[in-house]
Amino acid sequence: MVVTRRDALAGAFAIAAAPALSAVPARAAVPPANKQAPSFYRYKVGDIEVAVVSDGANTFPLPDKLVVNATKEQVGDALQKAFLPRDKMTIHFAPLAINTGGKLVVIDTGNGPGANAASKGAVGQFQTNLKAAGIDPKDVDIVVISHFHGDHVNGLLTADNQLAFPNAEVLVPATEWKYWMDDGEMSRAPAGRMQDLFKNNRRVFEAGLQKKVTPYEWGKDIAPGLLAVETIGHTPGHTSYVLSSGSDKVFIQSDVTNHPDLFVKNPGWHLGFDQDGDKAESTRRKVYDMLVAERLKVQGFHYPFPALGNIEKDGAGYRLVPAPWSPVI
Amino acid sequence: MVVTRRDALAGAFAIAAAPALSAVPARAAVPPANKQAPSFYRYKVGDIEVAVVSDGANTFPLPDKLVVNATKEQVGDALQKAFLPRDKMTIHFAPLAINTGGKLVVIDTGNGPGANAASKGAVGQFQTNLKAAGIDPKDVDIVVISHFHGDHVNGLLTADNQLAFPNAEVLVPATEWKYWMDDGEMSRAPAGRMQDLFKNNRRVFEAGLQKKVTPYEWGKDIAPGLLAVETIGHTPGHTSYVLSSGSDKVFIQSDVTNHPDLFVKNPGWHLGFDQDGDKAESTRRKVYDMLVAERLKVQGFHYPFPALGNIEKDGAGYRLVPAPWSPVI
Repeated sequence: MVVTRRDALAGAFAIAAAPALSAVPARAAVPPANKQAPSFYRYKVGDIEVAVVSDGANTFPLPDKLVVNATKEQVGDALQKAFLPRDKMTIHFAPLAINTGGKLVVIDTGNGPGANAASKGAVGQFQTNLKAAGIDPKDVDIVVISHFHGDHVNGLLTADNQLAFPNAEVLVPATEWKYWMDDGEMSRAPAGRMQDLFKNNRRVFEAGLQKKVTPYEWGKDIAPGLLAVETIGHTPGHTSYVLSSGSDKVFIQSDVTNHPDLFVKNPGWHLGFDQDGDKAESTRRKVYDMLVAERLKVQGFHYPFPALGNIEKDGAGYRLVPAPWSPVI
Repeated sequence: MVVTRRDALAGAFAIAAAPALSAVPARAAVPPANKQAPSFYRYKVGDIEVAVVSDGANTFPLPDKLVVNATKEQVGDALQKAFLPRDKMTIHFAPLAINTGGKLVVIDTGNGPGANAASKGAVGQFQTNLKAAGIDPKDVDIVVISHFHGDHVNGLLTADNQLAFPNAEVLVPATEWKYWMDDGEMSRAPAGRMQDLFKNNRRVFEAGLQKKVTPYEWGKDIAPGLLAVETIGHTPGHTSYVLSSGSDKVFIQSDVTNHPDLFVKNPGWHLGFDQDGDKAESTRRKVYDMLVAERLKVQGFHYPFPALGNIEKDGAGYRLVPAPWSPVI
């Protein structure tokens, strides 16, 4: 039988290894790397090459109200069931760099340089991992923004407030643009997080980008093979995408769910960051029923890296089945 | 509602992108990378640093009798349920490089240079990915072999039959060593695959390594923190490991199961490569019941990269819950 209690065996380890090693010249022990592999991953959708390029992950003590309509205890139980610590939350960020053959398209830009410094490198890794993937930000033709939260837009600017993708056209959802740039909406927004979001979007898009953006509409291709689809609720203009080439396609969900072990498993749970919880839930159920019915691959901005998988029904909710990593493309 | 049928939208994509791009100097389209990210991944077990270093994956048409006691149709159904092609099989290979702080230990060596050439790089990637991880084979102190199948031992030698890890002691399971080196066992082995295995092991261990190996026993630490445990059935001396440091540990299963969607899900299925199918099954059930009871992390040589996860019960079988990738170590 398998032995995992090893206290009784303490001290035994040196015996087998000793004889042969004595014949080998002593070498200094190799130091541990203390560094993760560059976190990027490539796959094909037909002729299109997708690179999932991690922006890192944010780990923080589980807040009392991460989920508006579930107790901290229930959320802890869901995390523990998924073999995760029950008192902490880790959220991953997965921007994309898509080579359509003619255009190099980035979708969402991560937490940006400020968060990178504040987190001591835990997040804001997008530029570093792009470089590891051999992608020069100057070569990016189009940056597509799914919605106007900081983890999606802050990477548009460098640490000294220059354009992080200097040659790229920046495409934004027309409805999202109208909402966050509206002074009336800003004046009516509650103090705290919502006011901070308005201010951050003015910082990024007015001070930083000088409003040089191209608003896009839902139901149209906004880059070769990239169809924008309305998935509102998380924000007023929240957008997902269908990327397709030939008969192959993937649904790029953006933030239709946050962490799959909480919100794919429990589609009725409302994330505190969802601006309209009820609308976000109805969007989520429609999208996930469609993903199940069509057996469609899904790429999730907040899924664990590389954030690609399929969805199956699981009781009253759903389950993410991660796609197997292919060591070749 | 979400639109995934996009035929009606053909030709619409250029509209939004056209205006701003006309102001930007024309640049040549960036070529696709056509190359996967280096497939290695690091994690900590207490103070010990583990690097999962992929040897690649082998994809082949589903054989009639991959599973001895299930039909090709049943196997295809299981693959399809897991969102994999029902007519193909992909097997991944995940050797390890473990830095204990004092010793650099490799567990299993992959398919080796011959298979690398024959597969045009699909397998035999271990040396390339070790290099990408910054690991010099000359720095490896110990190579541990779990069992004597080609995908575990062939990477012991270079293309010109030199030692791939020239300064390492090679540790082999005593029972496995005795079995494959026994002339009587070889003479009694059936022609075909079993004879080929005997011949391959003579090639690697006699011609190549000149029998310079150190046999090890089960129930003992064979390197700092690395306990060898008997898990026979797949081969007569098949070995797994418990790697531990402080209160943290991981079960390194080797080939207790092959692909999780077939053999974790269906522990009663007998892989054609299992030498003693009944014994392999009873070992598998004991190990997986233990992994569930102890909520013990498991590293599987044939799981999809990075091949780390936990096990939960799923009906009459089990389910692998992959560990989330951490973009920092």
